[in-house]
Amino acid sequence: MEFIYKGKTKDVYQKEDGNIRLFFKDEMTGKDGVFDPGENQIGLTVEGSGKSGLTVSKHFFELLNEAGIATHFLAADLEEKTMDVTKASVFGKGLEVICRYKAVGSFIRRYGDYIESAADLPGYVEITIKDDERQDPFINEDALVLLGILEAGEYAIIKEQTKRISDLIKAELATKGLTLYDIKLEFGRGEKAGEIILIDELSGGNMRVFKGQESVYPLDLEKYLLN
Amino acid sequence: MEFIYKGKTKDVYQKEDGNIRLFFKDEMTGKDGVFDPGENQIGLTVEGSGKSGLTVSKHFFELLNEAGIATHFLAADLEEKTMDVTKASVFGKGLEVICRYKAVGSFIRRYGDYIESAADLPGYVEITIKDDERQDPFINEDALVLLGILEAGEYAIIKEQTKRISDLIKAELATKGLTLYDIKLEFGRGEKAGEIILIDELSGGNMRVFKGQESVYPLDLEKYLLN
Repeated sequence: MEFIYKGKTKDVYQKEDGNIRLFFKDEMTGKDGVFDPGENQIGLTVEGSGKSGLTVSKHFFELLNEAGIATHFLAADLEEKTMDVTKASVFGKGLEVICRYKAVGSFIRRYGDYIESAADLPGYVEITIKDDERQDPFINEDALVLLGILEAGEYAIIKEQTKRISDLIKAELATKGLTLYDIKLEFGRGEKAGEIILIDELSGGNMRVFKGQESVYPLDLEKYLLN
Repeated sequence: MEFIYKGKTKDVYQKEDGNIRLFFKDEMTGKDGVFDPGENQIGLTVEGSGKSGLTVSKHFFELLNEAGIATHFLAADLEEKTMDVTKASVFGKGLEVICRYKAVGSFIRRYGDYIESAADLPGYVEITIKDDERQDPFINEDALVLLGILEAGEYAIIKEQTKRISDLIKAELATKGLTLYDIKLEFGRGEKAGEIILIDELSGGNMRVFKGQESVYPLDLEKYLLN
């Protein structure tokens, strides 16, 4: 097994069978010691956060695979904190696809002149490009195509997939009395021609979840979801 | 004639015949005394800038009206520094529609990881909402519709009109040896149902123009264009 990439919250290895192994580290994105899924920096190291993120990811990926959604997920080993996934290539240097059910965070900072904070949104989808230096700039469909990041038609597919995946995760959380405010997904091109698959992880670090009026801390998501 | 609105660079009057009269002031947007069409503040007062902006606007609006494009322009009085226009209502609190032929300004600040500065763009269109407090945030089609700013279908119409108008202005500038880098347009709903018309002004303050490698100062545009 060959080490190929050191990510902010995961290390990446090439397996001999052609698949990829992700090792979940105990690091979370945030700023000044406070977790923030919108942050690009590693904000804090929390013992057990890698395993917790993997447990939640495994739960959601299994749910999505059962629903027939194409994802990179193959298997997870909770003790080893590893997830085996198929190979995928990201779009450009990576996109973050956000699905919003509540007007909070950067949405309200941008459009607060037109909507009340925490108002319902109908699973609105938007895309940012991963670029730490430029604070993950927002991008529209035309710019994605003209910069060669997406092919014509891929935006619509990603939007539809995002809505479907996010709706399933929202419904699953609702069965536990939890409300999904927004979620950040990542997609890649799979090994079959034209195939677009869900990649990365699906943990508390990727979503804003509330229980009633209280924000659920990412590491508590496992407890609410699986107990 | 009734005074109805004091804008940053124009004052607005209601005429008795139902139309609107715009008075072009000698103020320009910018920062620290330097002109910047992307700025929201009034940066400087320049004697003659109102008349110059009106002269250039009149020239372009006449060109567009002749090409059969729906605009709010009726007539201009250069001595009085006024432009008479038809009534229109802006989308939401106003949109800025930008058409880009060169990767400069905020485009390169956002997407500089994917494209060289000043590379050619194919008349790429993007929209920001006018909101001084939030620095005119960028917005996509879905958010415009969900916030009730545009009706479904209007984005495509505005994009197509913007491309057509900008191409005509680009071609007109080219006849004078000038290169249009980008341009900022504003649209509104006209008095006829479903009608979308070009509003505001069309002066050096709305566009980035180059002569060879040199940026053309907005107040010099009149000289190059009309002499």
